[in-house]
Amino acid sequence: MSKIIRFHETGGADVLKVEDLALTEPGEGEVRLKVEAIGLNRAEVMFREGQYLENPELPSRLGYEASGMVDAVGSSTNGVQIGDRVSTIPGFSMGKYGVYGESAIVPAYAVASYPDNLTVVEGTAIWMQYLTAYGALIEFGRLKKEDSVLITASSSSVGLAAIQITKAAGALAIATTRSGDKKQFLLDTGADHVVVTDEQNLAEAVMTLTSGNGATIIFDPVGGPLLEKLANAAAVGATIFEYGALSPEPTPFPLFSSLAKGLTVRGYTLFEITQNPEALVRGKSYIYDGLQSEALKPIIDRTFPLDAIADAHRYMESNQQKGKIVVIV
Amino acid sequence: MSKIIRFHETGGADVLKVEDLALTEPGEGEVRLKVEAIGLNRAEVMFREGQYLENPELPSRLGYEASGMVDAVGSSTNGVQIGDRVSTIPGFSMGKYGVYGESAIVPAYAVASYPDNLTVVEGTAIWMQYLTAYGALIEFGRLKKEDSVLITASSSSVGLAAIQITKAAGALAIATTRSGDKKQFLLDTGADHVVVTDEQNLAEAVMTLTSGNGATIIFDPVGGPLLEKLANAAAVGATIFEYGALSPEPTPFPLFSSLAKGLTVRGYTLFEITQNPEALVRGKSYIYDGLQSEALKPIIDRTFPLDAIADAHRYMESNQQKGKIVVIV
Repeated sequence: MSKIIRFHETGGADVLKVEDLALTEPGEGEVRLKVEAIGLNRAEVMFREGQYLENPELPSRLGYEASGMVDAVGSSTNGVQIGDRVSTIPGFSMGKYGVYGESAIVPAYAVASYPDNLTVVEGTAIWMQYLTAYGALIEFGRLKKEDSVLITASSSSVGLAAIQITKAAGALAIATTRSGDKKQFLLDTGADHVVVTDEQNLAEAVMTLTSGNGATIIFDPVGGPLLEKLANAAAVGATIFEYGALSPEPTPFPLFSSLAKGLTVRGYTLFEITQNPEALVRGKSYIYDGLQSEALKPIIDRTFPLDAIADAHRYMESNQQKGKIVVIV
Repeated sequence: MSKIIRFHETGGADVLKVEDLALTEPGEGEVRLKVEAIGLNRAEVMFREGQYLENPELPSRLGYEASGMVDAVGSSTNGVQIGDRVSTIPGFSMGKYGVYGESAIVPAYAVASYPDNLTVVEGTAIWMQYLTAYGALIEFGRLKKEDSVLITASSSSVGLAAIQITKAAGALAIATTRSGDKKQFLLDTGADHVVVTDEQNLAEAVMTLTSGNGATIIFDPVGGPLLEKLANAAAVGATIFEYGALSPEPTPFPLFSSLAKGLTVRGYTLFEITQNPEALVRGKSYIYDGLQSEALKPIIDRTFPLDAIADAHRYMESNQQKGKIVVIV
């Protein structure tokens, strides 16, 4: 038997239940992971609520990111072996392959080793955040050192990853945060400038920080009425990556700014990388190298034990965190 | 003296007045055109209404496209000479350089010769329509023969230009029209398929016509609630070019479709071509060659005399036209 997190109805954090379930065997193309740490993502909160791109079939497992040791393999697992220390790349259905629990079956293509200089906690805090930011900024955004990158929700793990990738490219990183509480933290993690949106006019602040040019790349998981403000903060020819839908409000398209500035608004998810084998190879290599050189460094906010999974979700929903929330199994 | 069209207040077609004004001389970098024909554009209706990207300083001239003969040149006109038969490329302020009238001063960089196989009426019906479609489809859209191109407002001069450019590339051209009246006309001008949006579900029709893939490039001047439908008709990874704002309604951004399909929504105007010297050279060459080979062929709907300019505008606003409306001076 192993402890597995499931939910039998969509809703608040309380729907997450710790259940004792029989250990299952991996099938063709699958491996089983003895989970040691689980990285939490906003996607799981939305999936739990029934608000995600994918809808759960109840009862449902959940979770995209885990690190641990392979303890069983099915057929055709492409070289993955029992005893490998790996973490998971979220390129699969989390309803089918959710990793929250002591044990998880995942596709063999979705596990990857991580550099030895990372702890098992750090190892579960890399692929989602860095591949998401890598795909938008590097693969599609073609980030250059001349770029000014505006990063919203910047204290999230993906936001912090975007700051690190921007700085690794030598570009300007402008982070936003709602209140002043996280400003110093964001400066300490490498942001060149922090705009406190409760206190400052976003577009004016960004224009001042960029000598009136505006941000050339904008990386935003919020949408809603914020998109119009981001368009006002954008440079001529800028690209705004929308990689989430955190705002509960509708998202008006900034048509006039887009016409006047030739703006591109690009819906984007990391699945465009994880489902494209060539892009995934490039992304894994970029991230592995960055982790080894410590140009990229996962920032862990806080850890919870597996039994406190509902508390961990509530903490994520409180938006207090600065970096990754990890569950230790 | 020469007859010049101006307006002293923004509003309906009646604000357009035929006035006798003294002939003016071109300054540095400017040439004067003895106008023989004027091509009408939706942009001028919007400018007249005070709804355009540029606001008029009253009283204001208007108009982007004219053909005729150069009858005076200022200094530094880069080789343009008296007697040249040219038409204008709309890369200037239409408030400052409006071409509606018997005579017009325009920047020397904004005149270009057109192939001898075109009449003076056809000569004023090329640059706006073909450069607008060229920029989106060829320069930024990188149109390939495998593409399925969805073209809305397809009976407009720019829409028809987009159909011709799509067919010249060997790609699939799907045109939309509101009612069935213009369907046969659109098929006759080269559209592979026509979707009548008052009678058919746009997304379903496009999916059927593209074997379930959807349109890979969408070219739309309407915006408003149509954008959501276009996103539903789009293929994974498609680009939607929004090149106008004809809809009076707000334009909701299709965030969920964009995330699910990795869509790009790109605000675009031809000024991105006319203000980029290298892109303009490429565009002029592409269009000149296409006109010579008759792969591109301007479609003239109807002509009006200069004194009937208000009628010509009213006719454009009626949306009855199939192709370019031209005023003969």
